[in-house]
Amino acid sequence: MKTFSGSRLAARFGLALVILWTVPTALAQSRAEVDARVEEILAGMTVEQKVGEMTQLTLQAVSATAATDETTQHALDLDKLREAVVERHVGSLLNVWDVAFTPEYWAEVITQIQDLAAERETGVPVLYGIDAVHGHHYMQGATVFPHNLALAATFEPDLARAAGRATAVEMRASGIPWNFSPVFDLGRQPLWSRFFETFGEDVHLVTEMGVATVEGLQGDDVGAPGHVAASGKHFYGYSTPTSGKDRTPAWIPDHVQREYYLEPFRAAIERADLRTLMVNSGSINGVPVHGDAAILTDLLRQEMGFEGVVVTDWADIDKLVNHHRVAADQREATRMAVMAGIDLAMVPYDYAFTDHLIALVEDGEVPESRLDESVRRILRLKLDLGLFDDPYPAQDLVEEIGSPAHRAASRRAAEEAITLLENDGTLPIARGARVLVTGPAADDAVIQHGSWTYSWQGTVRGMYPDTARTVLTSIRDLAGDDNVTFVPGATLTEAGDLGAAAEAARAADVAVVVLGEWPTTEQPGDIETLDMPAAQIALAEAVIETGTPTVVVLLENRPLIVRAIAERAAAVVMGYQTGPYAGDAIAGVLFGEVNPSGRLPFTYPRFANSLATYDHTQSEETGPHGFNPQWPFGHGLSYTTFETSNLRLGRETATAADAVEVSVDVANTGDREGDEVVMVFVRDLVASIEPAVRRLRAFEKVTLAPGEQRTVSFSIPVQDLAFVDRTGEWVVEAGTFEVQVGDETASFEVTSSASGTR
Amino acid sequence: MKTFSGSRLAARFGLALVILWTVPTALAQSRAEVDARVEEILAGMTVEQKVGEMTQLTLQAVSATAATDETTQHALDLDKLREAVVERHVGSLLNVWDVAFTPEYWAEVITQIQDLAAERETGVPVLYGIDAVHGHHYMQGATVFPHNLALAATFEPDLARAAGRATAVEMRASGIPWNFSPVFDLGRQPLWSRFFETFGEDVHLVTEMGVATVEGLQGDDVGAPGHVAASGKHFYGYSTPTSGKDRTPAWIPDHVQREYYLEPFRAAIERADLRTLMVNSGSINGVPVHGDAAILTDLLRQEMGFEGVVVTDWADIDKLVNHHRVAADQREATRMAVMAGIDLAMVPYDYAFTDHLIALVEDGEVPESRLDESVRRILRLKLDLGLFDDPYPAQDLVEEIGSPAHRAASRRAAEEAITLLENDGTLPIARGARVLVTGPAADDAVIQHGSWTYSWQGTVRGMYPDTARTVLTSIRDLAGDDNVTFVPGATLTEAGDLGAAAEAARAADVAVVVLGEWPTTEQPGDIETLDMPAAQIALAEAVIETGTPTVVVLLENRPLIVRAIAERAAAVVMGYQTGPYAGDAIAGVLFGEVNPSGRLPFTYPRFANSLATYDHTQSEETGPHGFNPQWPFGHGLSYTTFETSNLRLGRETATAADAVEVSVDVANTGDREGDEVVMVFVRDLVASIEPAVRRLRAFEKVTLAPGEQRTVSFSIPVQDLAFVDRTGEWVVEAGTFEVQVGDETASFEVTSSASGTR
Repeated sequence: MKTFSGSRLAARFGLALVILWTVPTALAQSRAEVDARVEEILAGMTVEQKVGEMTQLTLQAVSATAATDETTQHALDLDKLREAVVERHVGSLLNVWDVAFTPEYWAEVITQIQDLAAERETGVPVLYGIDAVHGHHYMQGATVFPHNLALAATFEPDLARAAGRATAVEMRASGIPWNFSPVFDLGRQPLWSRFFETFGEDVHLVTEMGVATVEGLQGDDVGAPGHVAASGKHFYGYSTPTSGKDRTPAWIPDHVQREYYLEPFRAAIERADLRTLMVNSGSINGVPVHGDAAILTDLLRQEMGFEGVVVTDWADIDKLVNHHRVAADQREATRMAVMAGIDLAMVPYDYAFTDHLIALVEDGEVPESRLDESVRRILRLKLDLGLFDDPYPAQDLVEEIGSPAHRAASRRAAEEAITLLENDGTLPIARGARVLVTGPAADDAVIQHGSWTYSWQGTVRGMYPDTARTVLTSIRDLAGDDNVTFVPGATLTEAGDLGAAAEAARAADVAVVVLGEWPTTEQPGDIETLDMPAAQIALAEAVIETGTPTVVVLLENRPLIVRAIAERAAAVVMGYQTGPYAGDAIAGVLFGEVNPSGRLPFTYPRFANSLATYDHTQSEETGPHGFNPQWPFGHGLSYTTFETSNLRLGRETATAADAVEVSVDVANTGDREGDEVVMVFVRDLVASIEPAVRRLRAFEKVTLAPGEQRTVSFSIPVQDLAFVDRTGEWVVEAGTFEVQVGDETASFEVTSSASGTR
Repeated sequence: MKTFSGSRLAARFGLALVILWTVPTALAQSRAEVDARVEEILAGMTVEQKVGEMTQLTLQAVSATAATDETTQHALDLDKLREAVVERHVGSLLNVWDVAFTPEYWAEVITQIQDLAAERETGVPVLYGIDAVHGHHYMQGATVFPHNLALAATFEPDLARAAGRATAVEMRASGIPWNFSPVFDLGRQPLWSRFFETFGEDVHLVTEMGVATVEGLQGDDVGAPGHVAASGKHFYGYSTPTSGKDRTPAWIPDHVQREYYLEPFRAAIERADLRTLMVNSGSINGVPVHGDAAILTDLLRQEMGFEGVVVTDWADIDKLVNHHRVAADQREATRMAVMAGIDLAMVPYDYAFTDHLIALVEDGEVPESRLDESVRRILRLKLDLGLFDDPYPAQDLVEEIGSPAHRAASRRAAEEAITLLENDGTLPIARGARVLVTGPAADDAVIQHGSWTYSWQGTVRGMYPDTARTVLTSIRDLAGDDNVTFVPGATLTEAGDLGAAAEAARAADVAVVVLGEWPTTEQPGDIETLDMPAAQIALAEAVIETGTPTVVVLLENRPLIVRAIAERAAAVVMGYQTGPYAGDAIAGVLFGEVNPSGRLPFTYPRFANSLATYDHTQSEETGPHGFNPQWPFGHGLSYTTFETSNLRLGRETATAADAVEVSVDVANTGDREGDEVVMVFVRDLVASIEPAVRRLRAFEKVTLAPGEQRTVSFSIPVQDLAFVDRTGEWVVEAGTFEVQVGDETASFEVTSSASGTR
């Protein structure tokens, strides 16, 4: 892996991020010292204290007020808080009330909690965890970053690392040392309501972006200033429910689970010492993962040797009863989940879990040694996080909250994410052109930020800062107010005055139609058709039919079907949910301030019932209704042109122990500087499990001046080309492998099969 | 299982079918005699002769003419036929040229083939196999039956048995003793192009309809007059490709494979001595079934003890190379498939398989003993079929071809299939009413027959008899020509003159809009959206908007989405593909000649991306986008009303060894005779694998006079409620089971868990 300081971005981005990245780490306690301290504390703990350590409550459970809207004032219920922290020994709290707090108020809340924890006999501090999945977005004034799907579109792990780093700093400034991030789920089911939370469909891309995020969050030492523990989620196979609905059954063959869904987690544990995992809320092949010892213990602990903390997702032990129907009652569900291997239960409202677990230990159904295993892991994490030394907000980091450097990183990420999908030459728009802006997502900060922004669904509009800049405001800035007309045209679901939109389009040189999807996540985001609502399609069609060149911009939770307009629009821009700088980044692309360099991190489908990833099998490739997406994985245009040539391999034959050097010449053949993402795909032509037609095995984003040519080289270990066979073994089978870069291909032979290569 | 002669249908249907069913069976040769004869023949066979026995060619491979259309005259190429049968020892031929032959020509073809076979040293006759999947539809003049999906809608296994029986008689009349039918695949993926070929989504219904079909085809003795060998297909798990596209990868957990997809096959083998199986052309969990010894040998032979013949599907050994990419070349694919356990290769055009297999035996890669296993099975089948005694067409059965009794059985099946989905009282239509008939499926014999009718796709219009009666012609008969106006309105995909349709609707008392889908099957039937084409929806909407009560009739390959019109129509009738009597059956229902009694054998979805079967899990049941189909499995209205009451169970507790008696009172509370389908669903409330919210465990169709009440009783063995756990074991777990009939529920407790119950 390349180092950040030597990277393309550091060179261009300047000093700010480099300094962030090189914040000195504190001297870490030795593992032996920590272990000894853990045993010392554990030896003094009662069963009740141990069970308390394994209990996590939501802040709402210890709050005096129920939120009604963003204007309600939060207050802790100090009696409830004392009951939780002191009397019930609760070891962890999480998240928010209903909406984001100010940094000052976060500091106050955390301080009160830790003050109470200091009163406990054990003296064990509380582990506060939070969803800070695209910046520390439950804190007002925090730097909000693009969602993961957009980050993935940058194909630039350094940007994910910088986002993680900034998020960690801002979290610690508010006293929160644990982030339920990143999502390592693969975005292979476009219906899924959390598609936008993934780094896309490809194993390698998800791995590289996710590992970089963990590196940014955790650094080398989670106890060092400005670092937090990450939580890889959702372990594992959560993202591909067969029906598309959240938390419904997934059918995934064992070998696919291993080869695809497990890999990003495995890499994060091995490469970045990922400290915690959150469990998949769904079921795999009929078994809810929260009750599955085969995954949470046999695989994770025994086989993979994971030593970190495993936390449930929201109320997921309860869900074993009435949602999954694998446990007859809460007590049985508690026994099932604990014996399966969970360490910490995100209960989150009451003491049912706590009481049941105490009773289960008393009745001999859960051995106390099982509690000890989990409590050891939790205590070790708390020690490593430095909470025993200082569990309070880091005052010296407060000035970093929303700092110019952090905001620059967010803007940079947004700019590199925007993906130009179609362009007949209409883009970039000339300054001075008369521009119609229309569509329900054109002037809406909520839509461009997406869920998990200031509130769970992100839709409490009053929480958004007045300064939020939308596509419309940014276009007005770049084009000049006088050149811009705005007509709403439609809501997200209802047609508006299409005649007015068409009339305005006729009076314009270019029309920009910004379509989108109302932010939702988890069950509220379930959908029943992938089609873009008819009202929005009708608006775009009405504008297109005027003959005025029409640019369609998409701000979506997932790839809604836009077939009817995709090929008729003059240009199509994928805007994802890039947050506060969505407007600037999109307008920057539209007017050529930014040369687009985003690449689709997923396959954009053309039809609602023809969903396939780029790494499908040959049997799905051909035929009258074979693979034919709207836009393929990796697609993205630029305002300059690139030429890839002279693909060459370092060897013609190889064994599983070898690496194959892949080189290719990439040239900027246009007339402005631009970024090209060089992607190396490899195809295993024949295998005992139907092989994919291609798999991404390496990529690099390079910046090229006009006329510049560069040789880009990769070293691909043959063992990276292994697949998991039906016995669960990683194998490389002898045979031909085809390397694909751009339109170029080259082949080499693996001369002998090898197993157990990973 | 009830006997046919005592059934509801026999009582009403009269003598004809009972006579058919009791055709005396010939004295069967003893198994020992057959085995001895097999060994005697085998002992004299060369490797080439054995491999020839394992080779199946299509008739096209030995034909002199390539068909262009239905007017081309077929001729055998006697040199090619001699090469195949005499020189290459080919043991089996199949199917058709391109279009259906007359009975006389079939007799001529079969006679020529068997005459040549008689010249072989071994004297082994040729085994001719054919797709006769809804009647012997590759023969002109044959009785065509409704497709399986429609048959399933009758919920009357006796009708499937009668269809099988009639088909077998007509096949033998043409000299063909082997039918590639029935489909035992479960119709759980509505996108799949062969959905209409299934008996629907439910395991129990598919099993009962499929077993009855096998009983009808095979009788007690496949060698008896008018009986043929059946072929259960496609073994197994073919019907649920994840993408929906035919012959693409299916992801099905092992326990689901066992508990759902295997059951109908297992039942047919155990209950009806199913003689042959055709292999699933797809892949399950990454492994193409044609190359999978775990399924074709370990499971099928060793565990299940299946002794019959396993035939590949069309060219599926070749497909291991270029379609599935699990074999590097044809030779490797041949070795893979033969060693996996196939007996007979549907090659179908050349001698590549034959030559490769001979070479593989010579080179020691396939032991000759492996050939012997397959040849024994094939020879035994040929002996049991009586081919050694008389391989020629049964002249005495020729008069049964298209006989009145057979045609009555087809019509009866069509009438009982038609399913009334919605009715605001508009139906039945009064005689004398002015009726507009419109829609692209209203007057099209091709659409109402579906694929596999006179040709593969069923779309060679010239093959259809002039006498084919459509919905329009039958309505004209019943309503009187003067009362009926016909306006096409639209083609299947293109809007027509909607104004004309609306105008005609305004002038009518009732409008009947017949929508449909062009017949297709296998890969040509792949689709990319489940939505009914917009042109047809627009036609229905234009008619509905006139305010004239509008009846929508659907003739489809699969349940296309009709949400936009389903609730606005006055009535909706599912017409399936019921063949020659579709028009009469549908018109009969529309005008009240027939009181509809069909029930949906699948869940009709409301949205294209919200596809779930009735037996989904609790986690899919609830929530804002929970289970909410357009029409549920088992739904179907009548012109009378039924009331179900007084559900009672014979016991409150049970063990796995017990049976639970279920009784319910069913009353006809309306004023005309009608058929009610009593369905018993059982829910396992909690299980170690997420249980279904309900599973159909028994059903019976009963005919009730107005005011008649009857008690309907069932005995449900507790072991039938077992599920397959993650270890692959059938288990009944202790706990509560809820019995559901109509709106009534009752519960009983299973007091102790038991495994290995099946």
